[in-house]
Amino acid sequence: MLMSAMPTTALARRMHALGHTGFTCATVREVEGMAAAGLGDDLLLANEVLDARRLGALVEAGARITVAVDSPETLAAAVAGGVREVLIDVCVGLPRCGCIPADAGPLADQARAAGLTVRGVMGYEGHVVGLEDRAEREAGVEEAMAILVAAHEAVGGDIVSGGGSGTWDLNQAVTELQAGSYLLGDTAYAKLGMPFEQALSVLGTVISVNRDGGWAVADIGLKSLGMDHGKPSLADPDDARVWITSDEHLTFGPAKGEAGPPARIGDRVRVVSAHVDPTVAYHERMHVTQGDEVVDVWPVDLRNW
Amino acid sequence: MLMSAMPTTALARRMHALGHTGFTCATVREVEGMAAAGLGDDLLLANEVLDARRLGALVEAGARITVAVDSPETLAAAVAGGVREVLIDVCVGLPRCGCIPADAGPLADQARAAGLTVRGVMGYEGHVVGLEDRAEREAGVEEAMAILVAAHEAVGGDIVSGGGSGTWDLNQAVTELQAGSYLLGDTAYAKLGMPFEQALSVLGTVISVNRDGGWAVADIGLKSLGMDHGKPSLADPDDARVWITSDEHLTFGPAKGEAGPPARIGDRVRVVSAHVDPTVAYHERMHVTQGDEVVDVWPVDLRNW
Repeated sequence: MLMSAMPTTALARRMHALGHTGFTCATVREVEGMAAAGLGDDLLLANEVLDARRLGALVEAGARITVAVDSPETLAAAVAGGVREVLIDVCVGLPRCGCIPADAGPLADQARAAGLTVRGVMGYEGHVVGLEDRAEREAGVEEAMAILVAAHEAVGGDIVSGGGSGTWDLNQAVTELQAGSYLLGDTAYAKLGMPFEQALSVLGTVISVNRDGGWAVADIGLKSLGMDHGKPSLADPDDARVWITSDEHLTFGPAKGEAGPPARIGDRVRVVSAHVDPTVAYHERMHVTQGDEVVDVWPVDLRNW
Repeated sequence: MLMSAMPTTALARRMHALGHTGFTCATVREVEGMAAAGLGDDLLLANEVLDARRLGALVEAGARITVAVDSPETLAAAVAGGVREVLIDVCVGLPRCGCIPADAGPLADQARAAGLTVRGVMGYEGHVVGLEDRAEREAGVEEAMAILVAAHEAVGGDIVSGGGSGTWDLNQAVTELQAGSYLLGDTAYAKLGMPFEQALSVLGTVISVNRDGGWAVADIGLKSLGMDHGKPSLADPDDARVWITSDEHLTFGPAKGEAGPPARIGDRVRVVSAHVDPTVAYHERMHVTQGDEVVDVWPVDLRNW
């Protein structure tokens, strides 16, 4: 389970109670927070760091921490910081971290020579997880995982870690699936036709309407919504159109062919972001609801750096 | 000064020490934080609220609070919450809050009949503050402010509040300028040719390079950058190109015609966002530097809701 998609130990605890013991983190702070919450059975920092001392301190304290390495520098940082287990991070097509495939074997040898345990490989096919055409997505996964499997043969170890919510049922190569977004959902993942419900929305109140212009304004803005994947959507009414998202406001108009304003002052609106990960990270807490009743509050305790 | 652009009382305190006593807020939390910091001489909530009780409590405690109203509902909320002073918020062309101009006078009458003091009008020309062509920006300001000045005649009071960093020297109609972004800057405002230096950047470290692909990866991502105005830019080296911004990573390539990778592992990079307001809000603190030395740390204490 990938913590960076919903950085809250509350959700991780529920997964843990269901038997889930391995968690993937993207930041040192996420790893520290998970360990502090007693969820340190098997934590992977699926990211490169040049200072692993805070991770090493967690190992000293009894947590099991594995860190991704993709260069002699990050390998040296793991050793210097006191982390004892690594995955070799391999670039499988996404222009981001990961060594070039030819370097994976030699890097694993270097890690073992330095006294580290190499648990296997990691490679994230992030360039294909969002492709809306399923056949394209499948072909992309196949190509990326062929690279990772070949690297795994050169590296050894038990673990092949990769995949994401968008490729959860297509990626048969991995032994560990780095999926997290499926738990809460967003409009980008909703386009992929996956069998997961969209659970997350930002609840706002209509504070202004303009009868001449035919629009309404809710008190939700871009400070509270991940905007990199595009504009948010209104969940209810789902046919209303978002015109503008500014710092603390969202302006929306009526459905096509209808007259505005599309809401009245005081109406509640549910807004769904196009990208769940930053949306959660921008909030202090999530309210868990059943119908209109708040049944729990989850602090977003792993956000920030 | 507009707090939502840089939600920190540290910066407000410096402005206050320089004689600046009036501050414009966008959220109740900003107003509360400013009052708690002893900066409650004259706080405007330039936004509509349907529950003004937390504002009324600040008035009781001795702060001077003015709230924008644009409807009978928000006016009633001010009365019920115990706020005694209002501005009539008028729509001057931006599809957001503000009553239609014809309603401004009647709404002011209604406010006075309810026992409120109407201090004047507010109207934000947010649809023109970012226009890159100065002549277009000037024409837009003129058109918007003609609406606001006419509304002011109908409303009365001493205050005409509006404007922003992009129209600071073009807007001659206002008595209070709602500018804040100019203090820290972003790449969108940098295009307007204003005489303010760009002070804000996010400092990251290169954690991975790919010699085959020619790219480098820094540990700064979209969770730490306002993305609604588009991709961030690298300040140093300023000719490097940003390829991808993901949750916790920024991938950048070499300058045109040059071979990559454009940086080495461990290099520091300064990234400038396209929108300063959310960028500041996504961080817990800002580090104030002179050269490479950190001379102060400012908590972003007014963020969240």
